[in-house]
Amino acid sequence: MQIVLVHVHVKPEFVEAFKEATLANASNSVTEAGIARFDVIQQADDTTRFILVEVYRSPEASAAHKETPHYLRWRDTVAEMMAEPRQGIKYGNIFPEDADW
Amino acid sequence: MQIVLVHVHVKPEFVEAFKEATLANASNSVTEAGIARFDVIQQADDTTRFILVEVYRSPEASAAHKETPHYLRWRDTVAEMMAEPRQGIKYGNIFPEDADW
Repeated sequence: MQIVLVHVHVKPEFVEAFKEATLANASNSVTEAGIARFDVIQQADDTTRFILVEVYRSPEASAAHKETPHYLRWRDTVAEMMAEPRQGIKYGNIFPEDADW
Repeated sequence: MQIVLVHVHVKPEFVEAFKEATLANASNSVTEAGIARFDVIQQADDTTRFILVEVYRSPEASAAHKETPHYLRWRDTVAEMMAEPRQGIKYGNIFPEDADW
């Protein structure tokens, strides 16, 4: 699996709009064949900070996601909401094994 | 859900031993009723860095986990492996909804 944690920091006035746009993106993303999970979580002690936990079945699936209409719409919609550039960090899975995602 | 991302930085000589100890802890933890997920991921560009993605169904489940034999064994086993104190950051779930974890 190729796992990407995308760290997002939004301007305070855009928290609700970001959640709405990101819910739309996530609920479409999980229908992609190459995506095992697409979780969206909000930091408890700073609600302007989010992480997108994106679990791809291959590097190709990650590239394919970036060409989908829902990703492109999300990218354009949230562009003005960022308090700072978002950061994606890549991981491999130790647990569970590939078959169990 | 109460989600905790535990950021771990291990000394290079302990990477394999940490993976082994953490696999044992994770595979036992997912059998706890209050735990929805207990993923362990390793950073691609720095293999001494890990995140434990712990998804609890309640704050009580998080407290109960810390009293299990497998957690206590893990805590003691990995103590000497840390390159710096590990850090847990709490999150709430935006997607998916509680019922879908």
